[in-house]
Amino acid sequence: MYIVLVYDVGVERLEKILKTCRRYLTWIQNSVFEGELTEANFIKLKHQLSKLIDEERDSVTFYIFRTTAYMRKETLGTVKGEIVRTI
Amino acid sequence: MYIVLVYDVGVERLEKILKTCRRYLTWIQNSVFEGELTEANFIKLKHQLSKLIDEERDSVTFYIFRTTAYMRKETLGTVKGEIVRTI
Repeated sequence: MYIVLVYDVGVERLEKILKTCRRYLTWIQNSVFEGELTEANFIKLKHQLSKLIDEERDSVTFYIFRTTAYMRKETLGTVKGEIVRTI
Repeated sequence: MYIVLVYDVGVERLEKILKTCRRYLTWIQNSVFEGELTEANFIKLKHQLSKLIDEERDSVTFYIFRTTAYMRKETLGTVKGEIVRTI
């Protein structure tokens, strides 16, 4: 499955959350990661993040696709992260 | 078409960029907007944003879908913006 992850979290929890995201996905720009994940790793990632976030203040949203065949990506300005091969 | 917009822009340009995004899309959380747009409005939005951003420092990425039928969305923690009906 292909995941686009966007986070909006308190700065005091940011470092650990970024470290966890980087273990599974590719950093794209501030607040955004992307990547191909197995179902098992997606469950692991969610489990790990749910232990790090403050449920009442933080937000981590996943956009989940079985394939990238139905999605297109465009960037204005500078491309900050790696360009992902499959999009 | 359905658009997920993620921005990573300098704070000095943020206000105008947010105002433009809000005119077309729904704020979801820090750095993220979403919504259904016509092709014509998508072109307008890109044109307006390209005049506001600093091409060398800012980044606005669009994930573009013809339909939301092939995407799923999950949120950990708090849902900050409006929940979009079509997802």
